[in-house]
Amino acid sequence: MKINEVVIEDTFAEVFSMYTARILITAATRRWALESALETKGLGRSATLPPSEASIERAASGTETPDKRPGYILQVGDRKRKELDHWLVTRIRKGVFPIPTTAVFDALPPEMAEDFVEIEHTPVQLFGDGYEEIVDVFGRKMYKIPRMDGFLYVEKRFGVTKGIAGGNFLIMGDSQGSALLAAEMALEAIMDVPYVTGRIAASGTKVGGNLYKDAVATTNDPYCACISNKVRDSKIPDGVHCVYEIIINGLTLECAKKAMKAGMEKAISVRGVKKITAGNYGGKLGKECIYLYDLVR
Amino acid sequence: MKINEVVIEDTFAEVFSMYTARILITAATRRWALESALETKGLGRSATLPPSEASIERAASGTETPDKRPGYILQVGDRKRKELDHWLVTRIRKGVFPIPTTAVFDALPPEMAEDFVEIEHTPVQLFGDGYEEIVDVFGRKMYKIPRMDGFLYVEKRFGVTKGIAGGNFLIMGDSQGSALLAAEMALEAIMDVPYVTGRIAASGTKVGGNLYKDAVATTNDPYCACISNKVRDSKIPDGVHCVYEIIINGLTLECAKKAMKAGMEKAISVRGVKKITAGNYGGKLGKECIYLYDLVR
Amino acid sequence: MKINEVVIEDTFAEVFSMYTARILITAATRRWALESALETKGLGRSATLPPSEASIERAASGTETPDKRPGYILQVGDRKRKELDHWLVTRIRKGVFPIPTTAVFDALPPEMAEDFVEIEHTPVQLFGDGYEEIVDVFGRKMYKIPRMDGFLYVEKRFGVTKGIAGGNFLIMGDSQGSALLAAEMALEAIMDVPYVTGRIAASGTKVGGNLYKDAVATTNDPYCACISNKVRDSKIPDGVHCVYEIIINGLTLECAKKAMKAGMEKAISVRGVKKITAGNYGGKLGKECIYLYDLVR
Amino acid sequence: MKINEVVIEDTFAEVFSMYTARILITAATRRWALESALETKGLGRSATLPPSEASIERAASGTETPDKRPGYILQVGDRKRKELDHWLVTRIRKGVFPIPTTAVFDALPPEMAEDFVEIEHTPVQLFGDGYEEIVDVFGRKMYKIPRMDGFLYVEKRFGVTKGIAGGNFLIMGDSQGSALLAAEMALEAIMDVPYVTGRIAASGTKVGGNLYKDAVATTNDPYCACISNKVRDSKIPDGVHCVYEIIINGLTLECAKKAMKAGMEKAISVRGVKKITAGNYGGKLGKECIYLYDLVR
Repeated sequence: MKINEVVIEDTFAEVFSMYTARILITAATRRWALESALETKGLGRSATLPPSEASIERAASGTETPDKRPGYILQVGDRKRKELDHWLVTRIRKGVFPIPTTAVFDALPPEMAEDFVEIEHTPVQLFGDGYEEIVDVFGRKMYKIPRMDGFLYVEKRFGVTKGIAGGNFLIMGDSQGSALLAAEMALEAIMDVPYVTGRIAASGTKVGGNLYKDAVATTNDPYCACISNKVRDSKIPDGVHCVYEIIINGLTLECAKKAMKAGMEKAISVRGVKKITAGNYGGKLGKECIYLYDLVR
Repeated sequence: MKINEVVIEDTFAEVFSMYTARILITAATRRWALESALETKGLGRSATLPPSEASIERAASGTETPDKRPGYILQVGDRKRKELDHWLVTRIRKGVFPIPTTAVFDALPPEMAEDFVEIEHTPVQLFGDGYEEIVDVFGRKMYKIPRMDGFLYVEKRFGVTKGIAGGNFLIMGDSQGSALLAAEMALEAIMDVPYVTGRIAASGTKVGGNLYKDAVATTNDPYCACISNKVRDSKIPDGVHCVYEIIINGLTLECAKKAMKAGMEKAISVRGVKKITAGNYGGKLGKECIYLYDLVR
Repeated sequence: MKINEVVIEDTFAEVFSMYTARILITAATRRWALESALETKGLGRSATLPPSEASIERAASGTETPDKRPGYILQVGDRKRKELDHWLVTRIRKGVFPIPTTAVFDALPPEMAEDFVEIEHTPVQLFGDGYEEIVDVFGRKMYKIPRMDGFLYVEKRFGVTKGIAGGNFLIMGDSQGSALLAAEMALEAIMDVPYVTGRIAASGTKVGGNLYKDAVATTNDPYCACISNKVRDSKIPDGVHCVYEIIINGLTLECAKKAMKAGMEKAISVRGVKKITAGNYGGKLGKECIYLYDLVR
Repeated sequence: MKINEVVIEDTFAEVFSMYTARILITAATRRWALESALETKGLGRSATLPPSEASIERAASGTETPDKRPGYILQVGDRKRKELDHWLVTRIRKGVFPIPTTAVFDALPPEMAEDFVEIEHTPVQLFGDGYEEIVDVFGRKMYKIPRMDGFLYVEKRFGVTKGIAGGNFLIMGDSQGSALLAAEMALEAIMDVPYVTGRIAASGTKVGGNLYKDAVATTNDPYCACISNKVRDSKIPDGVHCVYEIIINGLTLECAKKAMKAGMEKAISVRGVKKITAGNYGGKLGKECIYLYDLVR
């Protein structure tokens, strides 16, 4: 299929189910909320190695947050339930606690919570050394924990849902400039879709390695334009010199699809984009397949 | 001692030696370099729990970087040598690889390198799946690793020095506003000192716990104004309502001292700051004691 | 009246009617839209001297803009109708035209438009040198003007309404830190109210001058804490050392009031704020008086 | 000439002499200094219409500023001396005065000052209404002007030099993405050269108009790819779809040349850039011609 002179490959993204928490970090001013959000989502762009995945979903205005302060909503996810427990607590402890004036709330829509990460007995609770209390405030059950700059409020537990990870498509461009502009525009369109997170990946991977058999994940060589002359089964068409992967997670399959569609439509509007494809594992490993043709026609 | 009506306590900061790497991340444009630096330093604000410490030291201009591109210099540190190996590699793999157009260089002054983190046999090298090469480029030995958007250059090894961690002072203010403004101004002065990193901590800790005996670190209750009426040995003077700790790491004791001095001088210039003190462990655990009086007189 | 230990003075803000346009700047990515918005609103913080007033109202998502691209909404106002014509066109010509990929739309709710700034015969139209066309696109009548990076779309005319200028209150704090934190928090709350713009002013003025009779506006000396010992009728209470004015414009009296209320409530929640008052001219010059007591009780 | 497969046209940029001031805005924290710098440089991207030209040159660290606070250096210029007087004062009054904690210094190297903009008798001085004083502070003669948040310091006079305006080159790319990436990279390289300012212009102009005879400046139609089929003498080569102009001002011809060189070298390193050319008026109007060939060989 060709749209706007861009080839859309007849393939699919294979998505996986991932235990996902959705948290809201607020602060006295937006700037401190942002500093905390950036610190909290760090090292969260890929699932290859711990720490867990984490991304900023969107800004939240003071008119919609429990404590009427500006904030950011993040999604934190892991395919292993125990790892999510560990990393959600670690992210809060290391990303929220040190930053002035912060607080952190559960932001998963309540009806979606299948389970909870409990704060009790974690380093987050223990930080209080007995001075912490559970209080009813902001319409929630919150830990009220003394910190040098005042009380820090942390929700007592955080809902967990089986969200979607690994929504993706690849943008193949005739230059780094065109592929990068398309990727940025796609990402901004994706982030306008509720309940999803998106990111650009330059370092797309294949599972395992051909030469390094023990590696968990290695470079996606068929899609590396810079070695297309060395790779036997290179997938780089003539005239393509740069590829970016757009990765999408979301609370539901529905919103992940909507975001893939929004992102692809932007990408194919950009001059210099030659082809759109997607990554999958033959459809055998994932929870679901999202066909590109279904999104754009 | 009183300067500018601010009480300086006759005490000292106790600093520790920490295995420290200093890396430079560059990209095609400053914006992508920043995005990578922010991702790479994530979850690095405290040493209580892994991941290791990490902070952005400063921006680097294209006139001073090996590949003539804009960048950021970061310090990554850990008190355990093996942990530094692990986390430096993980930070590079998760913070540099996915971000478009990035490269990463060793930025430790060569004469300071006592040892090296080698990239060979790590997930950073293995990513290349055999397509990676070691090349002489930019006057360095670099891994040249194929990535979907072009070759990614990663220095072959990164120098490690025994740097300084835990330089600190506490700003005690009559309000959150005054303590926070002083902390920000102090931090900016600190970051003008070469080879140091600084950060604000709202969540100062004491070693272990009084009630929770097994906890590694718990709230620094004597310095929590919000519970000064509950804490037996509260250190909060009358009129103080908010405390921030400024934490300083650096490549050398010298620069850490200079930064503490610069930061303190700024902090005591701010109206509403009542007292400056520092955290220590009685001087028995650390590598050295930095006396506040020595810095300001 | 005292709320939360903060004195609210029994006074009022005197607001004026101001010819106001509301425009939307979009671009391929949010970053370029922001750069254009910042350039376009420059020199627009006060009405004392031309150029006209101008402020960014809010970000607009690609899901709500005519061309589905990210953008910013600005308000541009002047008490003189001809000046608004001149400065709106100049702001578009100098703030939108040079910035890559931009477009600019009328964003005044259509039912509010009492009049229009027409683009015909202005430097904005003339730029096209005959290559410009009026086209129906994005559901609007737009000028399609050739620019080196592609066509630039500019709405054919921009609605003008009699908006509100000069909503204000003064935050009097015991230190710069507390007053500034309160001002920032107030401003963020204000900007969550639809259809208003807000800004902090350190340089509050009185009309004319006492010594310099010909001056249009001079320092608001009764509210300068730094000269309270020199000013005969200083209005600075004991313990106040810093004052910031919050200035609010809006499309309607209603929204300006709502914003003043939101801002004041935030400000009085901040420790160190001692008193809130407002600026007026005795009620004789303005369009309306907004009483502080009406807002907070 | 062809470098890296990019055609360099055998032509020149024609530069003009422009009265130029160089000012330094500082504030308590970098953030407020930036807010003031952004407001002060607004509406300053082109010389076609007043206000005068203005750009941020670079950040200045607290270790190099007179008041030891972080700041930004700006260049403000106008081809007419009286206009520079007017707009420099207006920019300071509207861009520096309202922003919390700011101060403003002359930053022109003293040996370059051929003349001065005096603050006496301007709205900047008159603001003080007699409470202003001239004081010796920071090693300078400064106006000390009472403002609601404390004293505002403004240098007594600002040096003026005959700087250089209109250094330029045009980047012609095969797509918006490639041209824009090249323009960004070029701009960052330019801004690493001391004493220059640079900016991207999408809306390049020709002097006057072909159809609109009275227009001061109209679209540079020969370089608009979007109308290349309509323009008789289009200069758009086959395969070019987007053009950006890079404009460079500087204190001296020397630094302007150096910046043009640095910018061009970056631009021609970017895939998708097809040609570099420059704008001139036949060499008859300007102060000097800078030949592209001289810069790159």
